[in-house]
Amino acid sequence: MTSFGFRVTARDGRARAGLIETPRGTVRTPAFMPVGTAATVKAMRPESVRETGADILLGNTYHLMLRPGAERIARLGGLHGFMNWDGPILTDSGGFQVMSLAGLRRLDEQGVRFRSHIDGSAQLLTPERSMEIQRLLGSDIVMAFDECTPYPAEAAVAASSMRLSMRWAERSRAAFGDRPGHALFGIQQGSTYPDLRAESAEKLTAIGFDGYAVGGLAVGEGQEAMFGVLDYAPGMLPEDRPRYLMGVGKPDDIVGAVVRGIDMMDCVLPTRSGRTGQAFTRHGALNLRNARHAEDPRPLDAACGCPACRGHSRAYLHHLVRSGEILGAMLLTWHNLHYYQDLMAGLRAAIAAGGLAAFVAAFEAARAEGDIAPQ
Amino acid sequence: MTSFGFRVTARDGRARAGLIETPRGTVRTPAFMPVGTAATVKAMRPESVRETGADILLGNTYHLMLRPGAERIARLGGLHGFMNWDGPILTDSGGFQVMSLAGLRRLDEQGVRFRSHIDGSAQLLTPERSMEIQRLLGSDIVMAFDECTPYPAEAAVAASSMRLSMRWAERSRAAFGDRPGHALFGIQQGSTYPDLRAESAEKLTAIGFDGYAVGGLAVGEGQEAMFGVLDYAPGMLPEDRPRYLMGVGKPDDIVGAVVRGIDMMDCVLPTRSGRTGQAFTRHGALNLRNARHAEDPRPLDAACGCPACRGHSRAYLHHLVRSGEILGAMLLTWHNLHYYQDLMAGLRAAIAAGGLAAFVAAFEAARAEGDIAPQ
Repeated sequence: MTSFGFRVTARDGRARAGLIETPRGTVRTPAFMPVGTAATVKAMRPESVRETGADILLGNTYHLMLRPGAERIARLGGLHGFMNWDGPILTDSGGFQVMSLAGLRRLDEQGVRFRSHIDGSAQLLTPERSMEIQRLLGSDIVMAFDECTPYPAEAAVAASSMRLSMRWAERSRAAFGDRPGHALFGIQQGSTYPDLRAESAEKLTAIGFDGYAVGGLAVGEGQEAMFGVLDYAPGMLPEDRPRYLMGVGKPDDIVGAVVRGIDMMDCVLPTRSGRTGQAFTRHGALNLRNARHAEDPRPLDAACGCPACRGHSRAYLHHLVRSGEILGAMLLTWHNLHYYQDLMAGLRAAIAAGGLAAFVAAFEAARAEGDIAPQ
Repeated sequence: MTSFGFRVTARDGRARAGLIETPRGTVRTPAFMPVGTAATVKAMRPESVRETGADILLGNTYHLMLRPGAERIARLGGLHGFMNWDGPILTDSGGFQVMSLAGLRRLDEQGVRFRSHIDGSAQLLTPERSMEIQRLLGSDIVMAFDECTPYPAEAAVAASSMRLSMRWAERSRAAFGDRPGHALFGIQQGSTYPDLRAESAEKLTAIGFDGYAVGGLAVGEGQEAMFGVLDYAPGMLPEDRPRYLMGVGKPDDIVGAVVRGIDMMDCVLPTRSGRTGQAFTRHGALNLRNARHAEDPRPLDAACGCPACRGHSRAYLHHLVRSGEILGAMLLTWHNLHYYQDLMAGLRAAIAAGGLAAFVAAFEAARAEGDIAPQ
């Protein structure tokens, strides 16, 4: 069994291209991980997700622990077999989603008590239980259990939240144990305070992880504030380990994060948008519900090779979205994931060629040009 | 351009196997036509429908005339290009669905006035308008506009309804005109009255159609009554033309209809059931919502080659259905259509080999055996 590893193969400014090796396959970085919340990337067969160019998926501990349950998935042979995805899977710790249950959860040093949104049952999530669940799922990359500090946070609140997460990081590390071929990632917190980010990075590095996430971003702070943190936070983390920005984001967020040294990202945006009639293209986002598409014979993007663009007009997609047809969600989700993976491939190639600045300029120019109808 | 044609290639008892030739491709009969109501076979890409073995789709005039509109589809190049299906398409006349709008429609000699269920607009459907819509859609096999006689019907009501349909059949024929490569099918009515069925068949044959449907069945009369009519009605129709049984049915309905000389069928059952968690298998129907499937590692049917059975367990499908995941609808729809097409292929091969009785016996034995868990 190959053990977990990461190597940087090219650099361009702060950006890096590289390869994460796992026993289940290689992840080309910078990587975008489609989100498979409930053991499915919504509206996509796993074979189709692979066809878009995805090397790795994200699974949600919170959703899976409640339904169908981690023990059940383990009895059925693990998440990979359950959902028929043989590539690497990263699972979150469940922390972020549990914290979002405002009013329905109670946090203390031990962990978080909450009620299931499915059957109302009492639940407890701790660093130890999160590690156990992620082991039962068979996750290849396990995330430490942390508190995602809300934004904005006073410095004292951010510090206390970050230090709790660091104590939980230590407990996560101890509970994870030694699992060859499986990786454990720590999560940096500290909100928008450089000294707290530095303290967090130092503590995590002392504990020692296989990779490091920049946590507490994409929680409403806006792109400027996020890029502000990404201007310094990734550089505080070990150079030889992957850096993961959780829950990001829009295409321009992704480009900005990669420029600032991020190697991995995940977001529900391409899949969720696909179910609400929104398509991402090189020229910006299109809302297919809009009546202006009703008789437009063009594909979403003539240069895109996805099944929606190869086989269907905007007029047809408009009709499907307006009619609430499942095929509309299927085709737009596929297109969006394809677009995201094309973007990642472009970023990787640009970094390898030392041409990231030109790539970013072209990316911005295409968006500025907008979606122009032919004359 | 090839013109429309039909030839019987094998017979076994009253059952026939044959080929319908159209400029857009050949339809192997007995054929099951998946229903693509709103220009999509729900939850399926057209390429996937083709992969199940379907040669021809059915489109619904009623739905398409209201949204996106027949004229719009014509401006966009027709239904085939609009939905990206290059094989033959049969469209119904809109009559059946309009008649179902109880209380919202008014029928007279001219046709049917009704209000759109989408925007409440006043609409009129006549034999002439139905022919025009089906021409605008680019349908390969056009159905005459008729009244589907409700069941049960007194003989006098059934006679009067059938005779109206025959006058409309004549108007449909006249309005259709001469369209090489396109076929017009007449529809036999007469409820459960042999003399009315004979009168209807005689009138239709005198008008002359490229194919003939047995209408007014699958409307709540039950399998026994339906088979009762199918024991004599198909034999009243021209031997050298395809015979189409509309809106049928469950797998055993299909087998019984083929045995009785039916060449073509359509039904929403495999697609609709796929969206409500029901799977059809050789051993009967399975309700995937049922808790007994929660930890069952078996596929729906180990002998099935569809993506659901090749890649996924019943436990996983149960999870998807319980979670309301789109992928559950996608996989179960695909499986059901695959099962239906496998059944048709089996029937065609059995007829060709003169072994239909043995095929039917094996079909019934597998269903009687039921879905037995391994020891």
